[in-house]
Amino acid sequence: MRLTRFTDYALRSLIFLGLRGEEGGRIREIAEHYGISEHHLTKVIQELARAGFVQTVRGRGGGLRLARPPEAIGVGAVVRALEEDLSLVECFAPGSRCVIRRSCGLKGVLGEALEAFLAVLDRYTLADLLGPEAQLRRALRLPEPLAP
Amino acid sequence: MRLTRFTDYALRSLIFLGLRGEEGGRIREIAEHYGISEHHLTKVIQELARAGFVQTVRGRGGGLRLARPPEAIGVGAVVRALEEDLSLVECFAPGSRCVIRRSCGLKGVLGEALEAFLAVLDRYTLADLLGPEAQLRRALRLPEPLAP
Repeated sequence: MRLTRFTDYALRSLIFLGLRGEEGGRIREIAEHYGISEHHLTKVIQELARAGFVQTVRGRGGGLRLARPPEAIGVGAVVRALEEDLSLVECFAPGSRCVIRRSCGLKGVLGEALEAFLAVLDRYTLADLLGPEAQLRRALRLPEPLAP
Repeated sequence: MRLTRFTDYALRSLIFLGLRGEEGGRIREIAEHYGISEHHLTKVIQELARAGFVQTVRGRGGGLRLARPPEAIGVGAVVRALEEDLSLVECFAPGSRCVIRRSCGLKGVLGEALEAFLAVLDRYTLADLLGPEAQLRRALRLPEPLAP
């Protein structure tokens, strides 16, 4: 049981942009700082923008920034929006061919477990993930923010 | 986020063998009744036997049966034993190359969500999944058990 790399990259991108604040960042920068594929990341960012988590700023000096403050971005909401397939087993999706799908108790049990999983994520926001901000900056080789 | 087909088939096999009781069954039968690959199922059954959920009976008239009563087979225990990879994101596994793995709060949050997921499964046993026994038998085209 894994989250897709798509969701993983989405959460990492939000952490990056959360650290950057108003300054924001560019797809290439995020890809470089994490050492991940820029091509793959482009689709992730498009989806984050479509779902209203990230704002794209056009023109020279344009780029990306969070569309809402970190405390208004729920981890559960991001996973629900980005994880394409929360069908734990095939009978969650339409078109299942499992012969016992109509009488099997497993779907209900797994559905309850999935709800518990997402309920935990709903208790956290991006702001919680940015807690150890100084260490995250060092790990990503981002400069300290200018003093206000 | 999906369970592997391996775990899915394992749970279905246990449901089949649970319905069969002492009579047990054979890999080919399970594969036929569900319309799934016998080859794939063979590995699943080996793993179920290795993990102590299924007993293989040798010789003519041999086959498979549950190694314990259905109420002693926890759904959570089966998923923990069969699901090879409960690494929700790459930093759960050794060898992660994510640069923020040491300071990122995401691993803790996802780990807590995974625990909640498994805790729900731990509340159910195979006996709970066998509840609607008559419907399951019909769906699998299994005959009613002989009256005691």
